Amino acid sequence: MRMRETLDFLLFDWLKAGDLTTRERFAEHSPETFGAVLDTCEKIAREKFAPFNRLADTQEPHFDGERVHLPQATHDATRAYAESGMLAAAQDYDVGGMQLPCVIEMAGNAFFSKASVAMGGYAMLTSGNASLLMAHGTPLQREVFAKNEFAGRWFGTMCLSEPQAGSSLSDIATRAELEDDTDPLGPRYRLTGNKMWISGGEHEITENIVHLVLAKIPGPDGKLIPGTRGISLFIVPKRLVNERAELTGERNDVALAGLNHKLGYRGTTNCLLNFGEGRFTPGGRKGAIGYLVGKPGEGLRCMFHMMNEARIGVGLGAVMLGYAGYEASLDYAKQRPQGRPMTAAGKDAASPQRPIIEHADVRRMLLAQKSYVEGGLALELYCARLVDELHTGDDPAGAQALLDVLIPIAKSWPSEWCLEANSLAIQVLGGYGYTRDFPVEQYWRDQRLNMIHEGTHGIQALDLLGRKVVQQGGASLAALAARVQQTIERAIQTGWAPQANQLAAALAQVGGATKKAWSTGEPEEALANAVPYLQAFGHTVLAWLWLDVALAVSGDSAFAEGKRAAARYFFAYELPKIGAWLDVVARREPLCREVQADWF
Amino acid sequence: MRMRETLDFLLFDWLKAGDLTTRERFAEHSPETFGAVLDTCEKIAREKFAPFNRLADTQEPHFDGERVHLPQATHDATRAYAESGMLAAAQDYDVGGMQLPCVIEMAGNAFFSKASVAMGGYAMLTSGNASLLMAHGTPLQREVFAKNEFAGRWFGTMCLSEPQAGSSLSDIATRAELEDDTDPLGPRYRLTGNKMWISGGEHEITENIVHLVLAKIPGPDGKLIPGTRGISLFIVPKRLVNERAELTGERNDVALAGLNHKLGYRGTTNCLLNFGEGRFTPGGRKGAIGYLVGKPGEGLRCMFHMMNEARIGVGLGAVMLGYAGYEASLDYAKQRPQGRPMTAAGKDAASPQRPIIEHADVRRMLLAQKSYVEGGLALELYCARLVDELHTGDDPAGAQALLDVLIPIAKSWPSEWCLEANSLAIQVLGGYGYTRDFPVEQYWRDQRLNMIHEGTHGIQALDLLGRKVVQQGGASLAALAARVQQTIERAIQTGWAPQANQLAAALAQVGGATKKAWSTGEPEEALANAVPYLQAFGHTVLAWLWLDVALAVSGDSAFAEGKRAAARYFFAYELPKIGAWLDVVARREPLCREVQADWF
Repeated sequence: MRMRETLDFLLFDWLKAGDLTTRERFAEHSPETFGAVLDTCEKIAREKFAPFNRLADTQEPHFDGERVHLPQATHDATRAYAESGMLAAAQDYDVGGMQLPCVIEMAGNAFFSKASVAMGGYAMLTSGNASLLMAHGTPLQREVFAKNEFAGRWFGTMCLSEPQAGSSLSDIATRAELEDDTDPLGPRYRLTGNKMWISGGEHEITENIVHLVLAKIPGPDGKLIPGTRGISLFIVPKRLVNERAELTGERNDVALAGLNHKLGYRGTTNCLLNFGEGRFTPGGRKGAIGYLVGKPGEGLRCMFHMMNEARIGVGLGAVMLGYAGYEASLDYAKQRPQGRPMTAAGKDAASPQRPIIEHADVRRMLLAQKSYVEGGLALELYCARLVDELHTGDDPAGAQALLDVLIPIAKSWPSEWCLEANSLAIQVLGGYGYTRDFPVEQYWRDQRLNMIHEGTHGIQALDLLGRKVVQQGGASLAALAARVQQTIERAIQTGWAPQANQLAAALAQVGGATKKAWSTGEPEEALANAVPYLQAFGHTVLAWLWLDVALAVSGDSAFAEGKRAAARYFFAYELPKIGAWLDVVARREPLCREVQADWF
Repeated sequence: MRMRETLDFLLFDWLKAGDLTTRERFAEHSPETFGAVLDTCEKIAREKFAPFNRLADTQEPHFDGERVHLPQATHDATRAYAESGMLAAAQDYDVGGMQLPCVIEMAGNAFFSKASVAMGGYAMLTSGNASLLMAHGTPLQREVFAKNEFAGRWFGTMCLSEPQAGSSLSDIATRAELEDDTDPLGPRYRLTGNKMWISGGEHEITENIVHLVLAKIPGPDGKLIPGTRGISLFIVPKRLVNERAELTGERNDVALAGLNHKLGYRGTTNCLLNFGEGRFTPGGRKGAIGYLVGKPGEGLRCMFHMMNEARIGVGLGAVMLGYAGYEASLDYAKQRPQGRPMTAAGKDAASPQRPIIEHADVRRMLLAQKSYVEGGLALELYCARLVDELHTGDDPAGAQALLDVLIPIAKSWPSEWCLEANSLAIQVLGGYGYTRDFPVEQYWRDQRLNMIHEGTHGIQALDLLGRKVVQQGGASLAALAARVQQTIERAIQTGWAPQANQLAAALAQVGGATKKAWSTGEPEEALANAVPYLQAFGHTVLAWLWLDVALAVSGDSAFAEGKRAAARYFFAYELPKIGAWLDVVARREPLCREVQADWF
């Protein structure tokens, strides 16, 4: 089964993406233009990305002290991506965009993530960076920076973390001092500090790099304001530009302190950047020049404006790595002969060996992968579709409520379970899967990043249980429950009634555990088991989506049978896992709070 | 808490290894001599192995067309190991051995696996190879081959798999034709075939390599006998030797076809070897010279004579990789400041950040690791202690029965859950854990092999549910259940009564699922869910061992509290997982059997 078939089914049959063309913003589109975008993405990904994914891993970026070298293939692939117009896929026509719905943009990008998640990283970051500037930048900032990013002339980054402040953003210490608040490009500051884990932070793919940097403006006493209130957002270009977007020839004071050498995801450079260390002296003095975006103190709000899309993007990347492994292991399982059936006929050692896909345990490993990756794809597209509802639908508040509780799942669930899928892909290939002659080991390594970046698993769990499910008296959770209930009600009248009942029980169990976790009102008690809660919540959401997808297929084609089998798998093998996770949540198991550091 | 403290507690307090010295074979030993062996191993591992573990990964073995090059550190480390006498640790004094119990030998080797599982591989293979020859070789084979391996003069390998026969050994096609059945070194054959995944198959550490090779002797019709009945075992030295164990100067017809380039475990060469391709022509003609070990057709029986020790060894290696990650992440968690407590005091963003070990979720990740690695260590040592009962105890049949059902768990459980431990170690370190500047990513890569080699997860599951728990009317399972019951009865009278009841229920659930799986008597139906069964069985065994260990600690030292916390963790967070696994087993869920290849 080709992924495109599943993608088209989810987009057009299940999510009715074609209906979006009745909205004014998408009126010039049709299912055909959407399909043409997907065709283009699929083709570029197949020709320019996939063949070089291993190369991007083995020819790791290196820094000669002055420049960072990447394989030519990375230059060519990102160039092809930029030329396709996908950098501005969702933007207005008048800035050179395609005015595509988010769900189509995401679907198109899925092909690149599957072909080479690391080579695709530069473009995703650039698109997110420029979109943020479209929302919060001044007209000139949009014109100078965003438009040149959308055109692929310059690439962008997001500079949040620092060596001492990863998950705890309130502790960032990069300092921004006002130099001139009349600069046409925006109030001009001088930044000093170190930024860590900056993907795409240095390279020679484009002539310039537009860093978006979180930093603190000191108070009147010259001290940085503790906490997130003091954080502002700045545009810090690697090379300085004028109002006409021409390079001035002056290098900004942004220096690569070093490349991180990673387990995977090696095709994307990952950097420690020093801002304002004095390596360069723009305007005759040290200090990185940065232009304020939005208002002082609103840096986090601006940065997280694009959070839905960013987290769906990471989740979708995780799904696609899982998908790549699934396809590779499925292909292998169909071709590799080994062993014989367990029937009487199988006892004849002289009979030929059979393809391993005939063994039940191999099918179990393939079904598990299928349920994770196709379920994950459904999840990400569902969320992207909600983003479209948020922006162009008639119930943006309803969409926001659902997104609030679904985004932590969209980010975390595939990062955990598509990692499991990648491990199963290795297992299907056996010893061969453990070699670098097959792609599955790289997928597994690349995937491991996803539980860490863009908010760790632990951070997503705190966001979900500590904030999202309790906000506004639990309104977001209730909104999700209502949607799930709709699916249950449709399913209960079909052959899926047992699964519908199972899902109803799971939903009740999640609701009950949520209440019990918070019954003492103590965050320490409620949140000590936030990760098991996140896991159970995620599995319940996926069970719901699988049931909904199963209801959307009809007939007895292999395609339909496959979707039903994956749905059945999820209910039989996966959903029952939530009991163990929710037990500790519901009883506010205190063990992890109580254990002492010296007991380890 | 140092690992040595836990090791000593498990060996001497829990398993009463000191009592073994009352047995004749170990009469010259004492707890002090056992301790001295552990001291020596710990020291050599710390000085010669651990510092070079990363080097052995980055300086991957390479083949220049003639020789395989390894880092000097690997030569030095294996030399130091050989000189310690550990290669013959369990052997008789009169062959230069130390007559150590298996449990002490394994405990000593644990240090090497933790320091560098890949560099330790050569010695483990050699020891196993030579031990096998002691059991099945002729007196001259022992003298010439085994003794020189124990002395570290030559290293050994096990050559089972072939490119087309990995898990399905009955399909091996290497051919052995009789040349001279009067050779003093054993009936001499000429072997032709290809062997895949041969660890230690080529190197220059020792002047010779003793391959133990499975091959088939053709029948009178010149054809190979299908199935395992036709398999015999041969000694195939890389360089030919005479009866006085001198190299004759002639190279045997064994040629390296290539090195496998792996995800991890890179310090151990892994080879495709061609036997009898004619690269060398010993005695003037092509064909690898091999000496029959044991009787024709008994190759598998001989090879698997050492299976208990081999599988405990792999399991222990998996545990130690987990342990290494646990220690690294514990160390990091104690030192890395990030974030603040969830209490009112923690809301002050100006207060200093706290070490991450103070966060409940980090403690959860550390406790999970502790429960996996210390529990896994208890499992492996328990099994090794049973091997001693098998060889020198007064109820060898009872020990064999327990080993029958525990060995699949000893092999599989740590390979799965210490991989999870290694992943959690990465997660504790966050972005830093994803870089190659910290050791945790290598442990995770190295670990991934363990679910594949020495019998895959799927093979272990079929062995357990398809054979071990049903053999002799379920006698082995009953023997294990009786042991578990003894622990439950002791625990029920203590503060551990809730866990004892939980374990009793789990045991009943495993027993019930076993019966239901086989209730139709159809292997296809029973075994379609063998892996979930293996997982549930493993978690039940680990819960039992943790309860037993918890009963063995006393007092309120940090050490004792830590053991109790890990035991509590296992019962609260882990054992409840078995419900989901056993459900599908008990109802003989047919999905994975029924799904069709074209549905994927």
